[in-house]
Amino acid sequence: MTRSWWGWGHVEDAVGARERAKLVERVRAVLPDADLALHEPPDPATLPVPRSRIAPRFDHCSADPVDRLAHARGKAFRDVARNLAGQVSDVPDLVARPRTEQDVVDVLDWCGHEGIAVIPFGGGSSVVGGVEPRGLAGPVVTLDLGALDRVLEVDPVSRAARIQAGVFGPHLEQQLKPHGLTLRHFPQSFEFSTLGGWLATRAGGHFATLYTHIDDLTESLRVVTPAGVSESRRLPGSGAGPSPDRMFLGSEGTLGVITEAWVRLQRPPGHRAKASVRFAGWPEAVAATRAVAQSGLYPANCRLLDPAEAFLNAGTGTAVLVLAFESADHPVDSALQRALELCRDHGGESTVEDTSAAWRSSFLRMPYQRDAMAQHGMITETFETACTWDGFDRLHAAVTEAATDAVREVCGAGLVTCRFTHVYPDGPAPYFGVYAPGRWGSLVAQWDEIKAAVSEAIATAGSTITHHHAVGRDHRPWYDRQRPEPFALALSAAKRALDPHNVLNPGVLVG
Amino acid sequence: MTRSWWGWGHVEDAVGARERAKLVERVRAVLPDADLALHEPPDPATLPVPRSRIAPRFDHCSADPVDRLAHARGKAFRDVARNLAGQVSDVPDLVARPRTEQDVVDVLDWCGHEGIAVIPFGGGSSVVGGVEPRGLAGPVVTLDLGALDRVLEVDPVSRAARIQAGVFGPHLEQQLKPHGLTLRHFPQSFEFSTLGGWLATRAGGHFATLYTHIDDLTESLRVVTPAGVSESRRLPGSGAGPSPDRMFLGSEGTLGVITEAWVRLQRPPGHRAKASVRFAGWPEAVAATRAVAQSGLYPANCRLLDPAEAFLNAGTGTAVLVLAFESADHPVDSALQRALELCRDHGGESTVEDTSAAWRSSFLRMPYQRDAMAQHGMITETFETACTWDGFDRLHAAVTEAATDAVREVCGAGLVTCRFTHVYPDGPAPYFGVYAPGRWGSLVAQWDEIKAAVSEAIATAGSTITHHHAVGRDHRPWYDRQRPEPFALALSAAKRALDPHNVLNPGVLVG
Repeated sequence: MTRSWWGWGHVEDAVGARERAKLVERVRAVLPDADLALHEPPDPATLPVPRSRIAPRFDHCSADPVDRLAHARGKAFRDVARNLAGQVSDVPDLVARPRTEQDVVDVLDWCGHEGIAVIPFGGGSSVVGGVEPRGLAGPVVTLDLGALDRVLEVDPVSRAARIQAGVFGPHLEQQLKPHGLTLRHFPQSFEFSTLGGWLATRAGGHFATLYTHIDDLTESLRVVTPAGVSESRRLPGSGAGPSPDRMFLGSEGTLGVITEAWVRLQRPPGHRAKASVRFAGWPEAVAATRAVAQSGLYPANCRLLDPAEAFLNAGTGTAVLVLAFESADHPVDSALQRALELCRDHGGESTVEDTSAAWRSSFLRMPYQRDAMAQHGMITETFETACTWDGFDRLHAAVTEAATDAVREVCGAGLVTCRFTHVYPDGPAPYFGVYAPGRWGSLVAQWDEIKAAVSEAIATAGSTITHHHAVGRDHRPWYDRQRPEPFALALSAAKRALDPHNVLNPGVLVG
Repeated sequence: MTRSWWGWGHVEDAVGARERAKLVERVRAVLPDADLALHEPPDPATLPVPRSRIAPRFDHCSADPVDRLAHARGKAFRDVARNLAGQVSDVPDLVARPRTEQDVVDVLDWCGHEGIAVIPFGGGSSVVGGVEPRGLAGPVVTLDLGALDRVLEVDPVSRAARIQAGVFGPHLEQQLKPHGLTLRHFPQSFEFSTLGGWLATRAGGHFATLYTHIDDLTESLRVVTPAGVSESRRLPGSGAGPSPDRMFLGSEGTLGVITEAWVRLQRPPGHRAKASVRFAGWPEAVAATRAVAQSGLYPANCRLLDPAEAFLNAGTGTAVLVLAFESADHPVDSALQRALELCRDHGGESTVEDTSAAWRSSFLRMPYQRDAMAQHGMITETFETACTWDGFDRLHAAVTEAATDAVREVCGAGLVTCRFTHVYPDGPAPYFGVYAPGRWGSLVAQWDEIKAAVSEAIATAGSTITHHHAVGRDHRPWYDRQRPEPFALALSAAKRALDPHNVLNPGVLVG
């Protein structure tokens, strides 16, 4: 399998002619005036990648232009659009591929000494400009951790494993399988993202409730910082000062390079119960979802799709709540039955039909389809947040209005959708989708305008600029408004203490 | 009701003559040679409290000697023993009682300007020297937040409330009750500790699984720091950088003064199911408890008592697992039945007898009984930690041996017990008890020797120096070994940024 240099995932899994025709047809039905001409991606070898400004210092460093190009950006719509347009701007000077933790230490020492910026790189699936050397004046080394890909130790009694940070999702699970254990952290990027990336960005995973973020599955971290290696103790819980792990979780490569973690595992679930519930209206669907989220039933899946999302994904025009319970220990049918009862209280009609497999497959196809449609000039992108239940209606109205207005102004037409990816007793994590016909040549500028409008609406509503996609460089202005100023002072001071030469992912989070 | 100046809780609830006689008799049965002469506490007005070195700056400041004495220490055994012995050493110069957040700001401004140390004080129930101005050369103001005791806002939709930090447990619940909501955070100190104290020390509460610490019930924090007021957004979940709240949770007054928090609430549980399970041996009991902890059943109570603890608390000499399930939404009998099945797999015999009420009442009497026995020269103290299941047997053996050896050497005899207060899928939080006949006049020195021995054993085993009692001044040497050095650098830098004059609880956590 070959990784696409310009788009999502594997070249072999890209949207083929038949799937593409169907997608174009579906869009044309809704947007008859859209210009949907197909644009092929450029040959990366022909792109004007700037010459590397530094000589490879270690034998694991590559200065190959296409290699560097493939490490220059994440996989957000704006990355794909720029790649398709052949826009080459900020490209790292070298790609380093450490084979040992000592290699990581050596790269940080070298870069600190020479004042070279270091961008830690896992799977490169950032959708927030997290791995892009944007606007950095000096030389840049991208530190690709993919060679650190082993499960080093399994503790079957405590159900935990020590795992190197560069391992990709499938390879991680494959190594755990012989032990009868699983991490069950399945972000949409699962195939193309790494444990270290999940930890550094506080990634959201499989579980819609309880263990929603990788944070909750983290037992201890090992982090190489320019000031030394930080290793926390393996502790199921602690009250000894502020949590060291919680400082590195979400630090996005600005405080150090995560090289290993002990993570919490479980046995694969043998008991499952699933259902889909349809609602006459969105408010009833939201109220039912809140009831389930506050019930203490803790469904593994609790994904609410608004009518537009449901139509795009399942061809039905009513709000749908996809519910699933799972357990390795005990039957979960009664939990599902109680959840369905709560849904019925709000007019929800459950169906025996299990849409979760269809949803999962459609979920994993989405990024490929987004890329295919980008080739036709379609802007397809998502953004997510979290808010209290009390504030949801206001947030939803404000964001929908801001996005709809922006899409109309910028693109003339378009669709804005909403779903919940995770839910908590005190609020949901809404995930919005935007589908709009762009102008070839202006896709990035158009999206940036829409993104700014929705980010403003989220910030004004007092919600978070990201629930599980990290801050990166794209969210920085709104993140700066979100975090309390004294915390910014503290984090900046911590950064200066750990990274005195300010070489670690400059521009992200602080500074 | 009158708070005891020297011991736990209310004077009116102290152990009376009959209860005292019973306790003495019970001890004499086990330790026939112990000198159990009764010593009455001194009259605090006669103690040589040093003169205050600073003039009250605000009308809410008190320089009264007994008031200052009552704020000079927490409520650990070593505090009580020193009080009983009339040992007066480090006493704050003033007790400030801010009535508004602005009062807090003003005190910090004043103290920063004058270089006066500030010790935030909630209920004063610290058992780790967290509120004691030990070894501070300059003047000290203790900031008693008890006047900030209101529930300011309730959001019944999201089930959350904005609450001032100085409120004590019962008053907090009393204000929530009319809303049909509860925080259900019930540490042993519930009556005599405050929300702000819980947050600053990462207190452990009611729930044995899932929401074990107040951390998990925290939606947002408002903190006055010398560098400004920090207020995080109300978010059910977020992935925007390292969590600001997690930096202040457990900061023990070193980074700022928590004045308010939004906390997550729930409806009172209408469904309950309880049982006690007895085991022939300790290893079987531990294995069964692990099975329950890893089952995903999430009992509200899952407290394992070793045979000695069970004997002291319930008069039975076999290991007992106290199990309780609760829900506001659905029956929990099947969850209990499944947990009992898991226990039976390990030979556990469940009894219809519900010991949880007896346990609860005995649990709340413990500190009073500890004080009564301290008057007879008995050393009664606990310490807690957390470890992985894999490492538990080794930890338990090492700590038990260290404690037993120390007790034998220092006191000639004594008893060491173990229970689990909280359990996680990857490990338990063991809580040890020490009961030994001390020498009147040397109780503190004797306990310090025992405490150092057990702390060494915990540190050597790689466990945490505290699961939910905080670090304070007593745990500092072992905390310094526990935390990763780069994290210490980062935390110290954060402290310097927020508290540039180093006036906030100096000596705790950093510096």
